[in-house]
Amino acid sequence: MSSSQPRSVLIVGAGLAGSLLAIYLARQGCKVLVCERRDDPRRAGYTGGRSINLALSARGLWGLAGVGLDRHVLDHDAIPMPGRMAHPPSINAPLAFQPYSKDPRDAINSVSRGGLNITLLNAAEREPNVTIRFGLRCTDVDLDRNSAIFETSTGQFVHESADLIAGADGAYSPVRYRLQKNDRFDYSQTYLQHGYKELCIPAGPNAAHAIEKNALHIWPRGGSMMIALPNRDGSFTCTLFWPFQGDHSFEALEGALADRRRAAAPNDPLPQPTDAERQAVVGFFSRHYPDAVPLMPTLADDFFANPTGSLVTVRCSPWRHVNRDGTAVVILGDAAHAIVPFYGQGMNCAFEDCRALAELLAARGLTDLDDTLAEFERIRKPNADAIADMALDNFVEMRDKVGRAEFLYRKRVEQAIHDLFPDRVFPQYNLVSFSTVPYTEARRRGRELDQFLDRIIPQLPMSAAPAMPDADWRARVHAIAESEWRKQPA
Amino acid sequence: MSSSQPRSVLIVGAGLAGSLLAIYLARQGCKVLVCERRDDPRRAGYTGGRSINLALSARGLWGLAGVGLDRHVLDHDAIPMPGRMAHPPSINAPLAFQPYSKDPRDAINSVSRGGLNITLLNAAEREPNVTIRFGLRCTDVDLDRNSAIFETSTGQFVHESADLIAGADGAYSPVRYRLQKNDRFDYSQTYLQHGYKELCIPAGPNAAHAIEKNALHIWPRGGSMMIALPNRDGSFTCTLFWPFQGDHSFEALEGALADRRRAAAPNDPLPQPTDAERQAVVGFFSRHYPDAVPLMPTLADDFFANPTGSLVTVRCSPWRHVNRDGTAVVILGDAAHAIVPFYGQGMNCAFEDCRALAELLAARGLTDLDDTLAEFERIRKPNADAIADMALDNFVEMRDKVGRAEFLYRKRVEQAIHDLFPDRVFPQYNLVSFSTVPYTEARRRGRELDQFLDRIIPQLPMSAAPAMPDADWRARVHAIAESEWRKQPA
Repeated sequence: MSSSQPRSVLIVGAGLAGSLLAIYLARQGCKVLVCERRDDPRRAGYTGGRSINLALSARGLWGLAGVGLDRHVLDHDAIPMPGRMAHPPSINAPLAFQPYSKDPRDAINSVSRGGLNITLLNAAEREPNVTIRFGLRCTDVDLDRNSAIFETSTGQFVHESADLIAGADGAYSPVRYRLQKNDRFDYSQTYLQHGYKELCIPAGPNAAHAIEKNALHIWPRGGSMMIALPNRDGSFTCTLFWPFQGDHSFEALEGALADRRRAAAPNDPLPQPTDAERQAVVGFFSRHYPDAVPLMPTLADDFFANPTGSLVTVRCSPWRHVNRDGTAVVILGDAAHAIVPFYGQGMNCAFEDCRALAELLAARGLTDLDDTLAEFERIRKPNADAIADMALDNFVEMRDKVGRAEFLYRKRVEQAIHDLFPDRVFPQYNLVSFSTVPYTEARRRGRELDQFLDRIIPQLPMSAAPAMPDADWRARVHAIAESEWRKQPA
Repeated sequence: MSSSQPRSVLIVGAGLAGSLLAIYLARQGCKVLVCERRDDPRRAGYTGGRSINLALSARGLWGLAGVGLDRHVLDHDAIPMPGRMAHPPSINAPLAFQPYSKDPRDAINSVSRGGLNITLLNAAEREPNVTIRFGLRCTDVDLDRNSAIFETSTGQFVHESADLIAGADGAYSPVRYRLQKNDRFDYSQTYLQHGYKELCIPAGPNAAHAIEKNALHIWPRGGSMMIALPNRDGSFTCTLFWPFQGDHSFEALEGALADRRRAAAPNDPLPQPTDAERQAVVGFFSRHYPDAVPLMPTLADDFFANPTGSLVTVRCSPWRHVNRDGTAVVILGDAAHAIVPFYGQGMNCAFEDCRALAELLAARGLTDLDDTLAEFERIRKPNADAIADMALDNFVEMRDKVGRAEFLYRKRVEQAIHDLFPDRVFPQYNLVSFSTVPYTEARRRGRELDQFLDRIIPQLPMSAAPAMPDADWRARVHAIAESEWRKQPA
């Protein structure tokens, strides 16, 4: 390869990361071919299937800003959610809105995966250097030839070569699967004992939202939860996160039907839920999610029609394979580090990957991919590991702690210290969602703050707070924090 | 399946675990077909290739004893090693023999993988219910049909079905690979930064062993080591465990040749090491393994001819897939839990698996495989995880601590307490190698003893020992241990 010629890049996957990376690299002068397994969602209708609704925040916006799309997406595809709305188990208890930040402009943004993907595909196709081809399923990568092999919908096989192959092909990445066969490839896939299922709260009259539009709704139930994110058409996408087995589980409500379906012969009509099974679902929701049931007219239909998905964390290394002739394969986004959705960071982290990789390639060209891709992984891998950990931790916070008074009090203390010492204290959630400091630093500072709160709160317990005017309480927080810092300098 | 008919079992892999399991199940009345990728080692010569020499100990003997082969193997295939012989870096320093146990009958046994495999294949083929077929490479498993697919040496494909398919197909198990594609299959493969390479100390005149025959020889060098195990023909198989990169690494001595070989065109003659490269190897060994060099006349040849292997730990779950019709697939041995070789337990653990699975199937039959295989995993998985951890820990002990005076003193205290309180204290090494208590218990008791020694040794430090007669020293150990136990009852 000579450094004066434009370089060829093959991106496997035209999902969110693949289409964004295509825009970056095309603008840097690369010739970009993107091959996608699915059909064109602009023609076929979006068939992303089991996607969880997405929460776009600072890191994702930073990734979009590098190609000038952040403002467009916020204006056309997003609904800001400046806080959580916790729904108690009793229909008589009040809803509790918990702002994410003292600054009301700090919001995460509900976006439709399908809509955002189409926005990115349209922008990518406006680039003269980008070609996107659909209906090509990657079956393997020939590392020696640096080519990817695709199967067409008619069963033919197509080989595509490039100087750089970028696998943006998701949690079950065929590109990563080929790297995994290399000697000394570290790899792990770990599933939660919880699965997920999407449900729906349809729009009210005149596309009105049936519950608060500008909030991420949570029904925390200890070992499980439901969440709901607003859509711009007035509906909400609800997602259950329940154990597969045991109490409050998917198996308890749909296990018998699943058994009948597995037992059915291939030519039999698909067994359907009985009336008793449908009533059991509605009854269960009426007990545990009583305020949601009246808003979910298709609850029983959706529950049995929509699949139950699993939740995987993937970690691996190295993310790259570099040939002697300088051509290379790299993976990014979910392909390199699939995470659970509980911090709303999967897409945000993938967009950070895209911009980080594009900036390294812009600064160094595609002539020394060995060093450049090693540097990409050196920068990004510790951060991917950090958000993977934080996402797993946040599941406990969302499904259990959010509903507890102790947690709300802890958040109040945390926010007060943040207000009083804004340069010194920044809650982990805010660092992750409203800043672009590295995830590793967000995790480190989050842990420090947690230990600090463990020392503060016993000196000003929840039981003491109701009797104190807010100003007095804050003055007391201020004094305790200062005294603690004197003991243990930052 | 009716419970009165004999059951069919397909074992993938006729290695150590596969052939032993075949004997067990055939004697229980199963019809057993074993399919092996390699050619018959009794005809082709053993081509196990990069196998590390094996140390057979109590668990492996327990597994062999269930089919009456333990005595035969000890008498015909094994050399007992009742301790380690540590070789210091200076040729003038004395060798140090470290017995594994106060009982000289407590020995681990050096066996040739190839010879033991042939012993087990011969025993398996003596069973009327066993058929072994060679040259069949498993390419996939059809879970729906409970059949395995094999490719013959002529490129044809053969399907074999059975009520139970047992994958005893090693660390890179094709059977496990198929299970890995199932939803919610947890999996990890983790490589060490160290690799290994086999070398040889040939027999002396009249098949005499050139160094102490009844010992496991170790050249501990901190970050790396060499070991040597005796063979019955008078030779020793040496194994280097070195970092791939950095000081004292494989790359330092063979990296340049590897680069030339990778750069060679397919039709070029294979690039050979230069004289300078050969001299560098001998020079390096003369500095770090000075007493071994005169015993290794083919050192430079072997170093460049023998491959450098990697060392992987594999953990996964579930180890089984059970179909609705009651047929099932299970994995065992390295296929379910590949571990690093530093505790000499890979084969021993696999033989424990074989006997544990056979006993469960004997007690329950093959009619409720769902429960039986779940029970097998419930029993064995925590133990496989425990020995995987201990094997990783033991690398540090072997390559680094074994050569240090502090370690030898700690071992002396440990052994003294074991002598004085034999019912109460049992060192971890002895529990792992000379007993069949579960690995989990060996690990737990090992950790307890470590903490206990951390409290004892400061009260009777190494510096105080030389001045004391042994009887006085032991009396002092006794008193300190009793006093510590009074503080913290067992």
